[in-house]
Amino acid sequence: MSKYHRPDAQTIQSLKDIANKLRIHSIEATNASNSGHPSSCCSAAEVMSVLFFNTMRYTIKEPRHPNNDRFVLSKGHAAPILYAAWAETGLFPTSELLELRKLTSDLEGHPTPRLNFVDVATGSLGQGLSCAAGMAYTGKYFDKSDYRVYCLIGDGESAEGSIWEALAFSSRYQLDNLVAIFDINRLGQSEATSLGHDVDIYKARVEAFGWNTYVVDGHDVEELCKVFWEARQVTGRPTCILAKTFKGQGIPGVADAENWHGKPLGDKAKEAIAAIRENIANSGPHNLIAQQPTLDLSPVNTHVELSAAPSYKLGESVATRLAYGTALVKLGKANNRVVAMDGDTKNSTFAQKFKDAFPDRFIECYIAEQNLVGVGIGCATRDRTIPFISTFAAFFTRAFDQIRMGAISQTNANFVGSHAGVSIGEDGPSQMALEDLAMFRTIPGSTVFYPTDAVSTERAVELAANTKGVCFIRTSRPNVPVIYKNDEPFAVGKAKVVRSSPSDQVTVIGSCVTLYEAIKAADTLAESGINIRIIDPFTIKPIDAETIIANAQETNGKIITVEDHYAEGGIGEAVAGAVSGQSGIIVKRLYVPEVPRSGKCEELMEKYGISASCIVKAVNSILSI
Amino acid sequence: MSKYHRPDAQTIQSLKDIANKLRIHSIEATNASNSGHPSSCCSAAEVMSVLFFNTMRYTIKEPRHPNNDRFVLSKGHAAPILYAAWAETGLFPTSELLELRKLTSDLEGHPTPRLNFVDVATGSLGQGLSCAAGMAYTGKYFDKSDYRVYCLIGDGESAEGSIWEALAFSSRYQLDNLVAIFDINRLGQSEATSLGHDVDIYKARVEAFGWNTYVVDGHDVEELCKVFWEARQVTGRPTCILAKTFKGQGIPGVADAENWHGKPLGDKAKEAIAAIRENIANSGPHNLIAQQPTLDLSPVNTHVELSAAPSYKLGESVATRLAYGTALVKLGKANNRVVAMDGDTKNSTFAQKFKDAFPDRFIECYIAEQNLVGVGIGCATRDRTIPFISTFAAFFTRAFDQIRMGAISQTNANFVGSHAGVSIGEDGPSQMALEDLAMFRTIPGSTVFYPTDAVSTERAVELAANTKGVCFIRTSRPNVPVIYKNDEPFAVGKAKVVRSSPSDQVTVIGSCVTLYEAIKAADTLAESGINIRIIDPFTIKPIDAETIIANAQETNGKIITVEDHYAEGGIGEAVAGAVSGQSGIIVKRLYVPEVPRSGKCEELMEKYGISASCIVKAVNSILSI
Repeated sequence: MSKYHRPDAQTIQSLKDIANKLRIHSIEATNASNSGHPSSCCSAAEVMSVLFFNTMRYTIKEPRHPNNDRFVLSKGHAAPILYAAWAETGLFPTSELLELRKLTSDLEGHPTPRLNFVDVATGSLGQGLSCAAGMAYTGKYFDKSDYRVYCLIGDGESAEGSIWEALAFSSRYQLDNLVAIFDINRLGQSEATSLGHDVDIYKARVEAFGWNTYVVDGHDVEELCKVFWEARQVTGRPTCILAKTFKGQGIPGVADAENWHGKPLGDKAKEAIAAIRENIANSGPHNLIAQQPTLDLSPVNTHVELSAAPSYKLGESVATRLAYGTALVKLGKANNRVVAMDGDTKNSTFAQKFKDAFPDRFIECYIAEQNLVGVGIGCATRDRTIPFISTFAAFFTRAFDQIRMGAISQTNANFVGSHAGVSIGEDGPSQMALEDLAMFRTIPGSTVFYPTDAVSTERAVELAANTKGVCFIRTSRPNVPVIYKNDEPFAVGKAKVVRSSPSDQVTVIGSCVTLYEAIKAADTLAESGINIRIIDPFTIKPIDAETIIANAQETNGKIITVEDHYAEGGIGEAVAGAVSGQSGIIVKRLYVPEVPRSGKCEELMEKYGISASCIVKAVNSILSI
Repeated sequence: MSKYHRPDAQTIQSLKDIANKLRIHSIEATNASNSGHPSSCCSAAEVMSVLFFNTMRYTIKEPRHPNNDRFVLSKGHAAPILYAAWAETGLFPTSELLELRKLTSDLEGHPTPRLNFVDVATGSLGQGLSCAAGMAYTGKYFDKSDYRVYCLIGDGESAEGSIWEALAFSSRYQLDNLVAIFDINRLGQSEATSLGHDVDIYKARVEAFGWNTYVVDGHDVEELCKVFWEARQVTGRPTCILAKTFKGQGIPGVADAENWHGKPLGDKAKEAIAAIRENIANSGPHNLIAQQPTLDLSPVNTHVELSAAPSYKLGESVATRLAYGTALVKLGKANNRVVAMDGDTKNSTFAQKFKDAFPDRFIECYIAEQNLVGVGIGCATRDRTIPFISTFAAFFTRAFDQIRMGAISQTNANFVGSHAGVSIGEDGPSQMALEDLAMFRTIPGSTVFYPTDAVSTERAVELAANTKGVCFIRTSRPNVPVIYKNDEPFAVGKAKVVRSSPSDQVTVIGSCVTLYEAIKAADTLAESGINIRIIDPFTIKPIDAETIIANAQETNGKIITVEDHYAEGGIGEAVAGAVSGQSGIIVKRLYVPEVPRSGKCEELMEKYGISASCIVKAVNSILSI
């Protein structure tokens, strides 16, 4: 262990001065926008000053350089002080801080990666530490670099379970390059936090979760310099700094007072700024410059193709979830930046195949889906990896907020959810994904794949890896026949016409299990001289409106959708929405109408109206209109 | 503290015998269905035996009697042993256990309230303790009764952050009537759990979270009897029993072995059952009968009306979120079983008004939305309360899995989400609910209200309180004019035609902020002689298809929807879906097309295409078709 060198007195004074300047910037910016959280900024002023001007190593002019230390502001509502810190580094003029929250400025109410110094959007609380853990995991195990990750967490948000998932994860994987700082300012939005200033309880909890912890006076820059240095000496464990602070610190009448959450100071600002200025020794430019990291990391190649084409026989019976595992291994062979993670379902999702092939690039995240998703999003930052995140599709609902924030974070993380719909059978509704398509469709900029067979699944995996934004692939449990040739081309937003004749009277749209039911129905109907067209949409978002409309127009404007999910937000509404601007097209929908029971797949499809016999009935019904 | 009386030797032997009988039932049932989790049942056999035949007090013939002790099987995949325990009480014949997972049986793969001895569905892991905490809170503070709540948690699922939210909540509120049992059997689904058999770490963590804890041999019925008795003596703190167990305990070759998760024994069953039988002293009927509770609680009146009609002036400016608070107080006055809870946003959602009026019926759940929702669902069980759960609508995405499971649980809990859409302004996208309608629409049996003004909001609150299933009310941040008279009647699924003339050329559908924009657009268009009809849907699910179609047909089949949310799953797709069976109706949609920025409400509505001027353009455009 090297020896600690106390910063000289001038440095200490400069750090104090910067902290107070950050306070003033935060007060001025929130006053200019007449909204925002100056009091939540002020409690963190010394932490921010020490991190940005003493502890962290980064190149100011290239905030996203892969070697830079990372900083995640989990308490995103303190955005103004993050913006102020970067302005004080010289990245942009401090005068721009007054543009806070204006439509013309990227200095939004909460940080987003529209700013080049922000890796993940925050503002929905309790999410930052999982993303930071993903970055730290990437630094330690994939980049094998010495950059460190700092995450500032509010005490209020530490009530979120996701924080405790991330704490457990980080100690499990010995992320000694990760430092969490709890800004324990005692006050939440509407009242005091549950634990107030009882830092001993925080310490006991975080230590029990396996972290090296320090309790410090969060307004003492000397103490902060020292513990951040000490944290760097610790190996095998992440470090948590429990900083006892006061909300609104430095502002007379506001510090530690209730009812100042999220309120600009208004008329009180002038007096507050004057009081803070009194504590600034040198109001001119400071001489502190961030330490430089060693710049030895290069950008990663994030393009990847399957190392070998799909290799199936037509009619061979393969579950799409199994094809996912096969494809993921092929991607992993082609690009060593493909990584995968799962929440203790890898033997069901078949992420296991990737783990078997590339154990060093697989992260077991245990049964903690919010952290699973946050870690994946963290791994994806700065394009350091191409992550695939898998669990049962139903359980991604656990992380909807994280996925939603992932879109705001401009993440390229890929999500693969197995065990779709009633086709899973006996496990029952808790395990059935019946809202997953609706959920992932709402995500702005998302791409939603629902491949029908093993060939199209492999191509979906390849396309997802190379498609920007949130990608979701829905895989299914049962074995289903391969219907596409191994060299069949697939593209996002391009449907396949699976069965077609000039005399088709209805267009039926289905995916995977329901597509096979449609084929069975077509065979039955053909016996009585009725031909139907069958479309496999491949992606549910974007939905191939052009192909659907063109085929519908060739089949008397009649469409039937067959959906292994609930009524809302899935295939049927995607199709109804796509044709809603067209006069003369009608859509009849078959979907799961209620909470299903346990039972065999075939029985359930029959009971809930999405089997071949139900399609036959629906065709006869729509033909009678 | 009273003195502990050790059960006599015969009782101890009977408890052991019952545990082994439960094992045999679990093995036989899962073998009969060729699916399920016998090994996860076997680790919990002694805990179940002791709870059901020594510790818990309940009336066998009326499993949902309000005075009964409650039991929540958070590790829902161990359902067969729960079913076996009730069969052994005599509630139904043990032969029915062989119907496990059949479509014709309520003995599903995971427990649901289709069974009268199940209060909440489980199977998505980590959710049971929050529901149990809600039941315990209700018992202690609302029912003021002595019933106790027991929750059996798997060690794998204890990685879920929601468990830690619930642990923090339960100690915060001194739920000494709550007992959690961790079944620490070391093995997850795909590998060993993160902590394996390190019970000391579990103990340190749970104790740090404020619980009275015991580490026990989970297969020792004597030890279990004693700690459950001791737990009953503790006041001011909940108790956690950390039961060290072995997965598959009792089955030679399976106990503590990997790769036996979720696998029936098949051919090995016969030998396993024989081995277990050897440990049964008395294979005939046992003489143990559950203790009876005092039966002094009555059913609750769950019908409620506003204590006073809405009282606004037409044109008065009132935020719908404020009207929510006003209405909730009126409900609270009318029925003392109305309760409310919030996640530290009560001064924004206006649940604060309820807390001010009825502090004893408000639960502050802090920033932990998963537990917030779970507690609410727990409070709603056995119709003991009429709960209203509020936070920013965006943050309900954090609890999508809990809400999804709430539907399977047949909950009547009501959800109220404020700060809808871009109308919130400067806080930016992390705080904006843009997926909330889509999310709540997917929930089977749900009712989704989106009231436009204060009068309709008050009626939505009243209707939600009396409507079965999950109800969601979307409230908005800005002040908006009152447009309905105080005596205007509202009903679920009934839209209001807000503006109408015989010469209307287009029907425009909007809610709250977008409805007011539609009215402005109508005034502008009227100046150039174009009249439009305006519809306020009131409920987005069910959507009033009849009114919408009838009005569309009167306006040349032309509809425009104006949606303060993303494209998918909300108002527009609900309308498109509702009219998709009709030929000759077209729908043009205005919605938020991408992740919005921070900015002023009016600027954002203009930028993202849902303002009055955008509606004017859309009307002119659709008229040209």
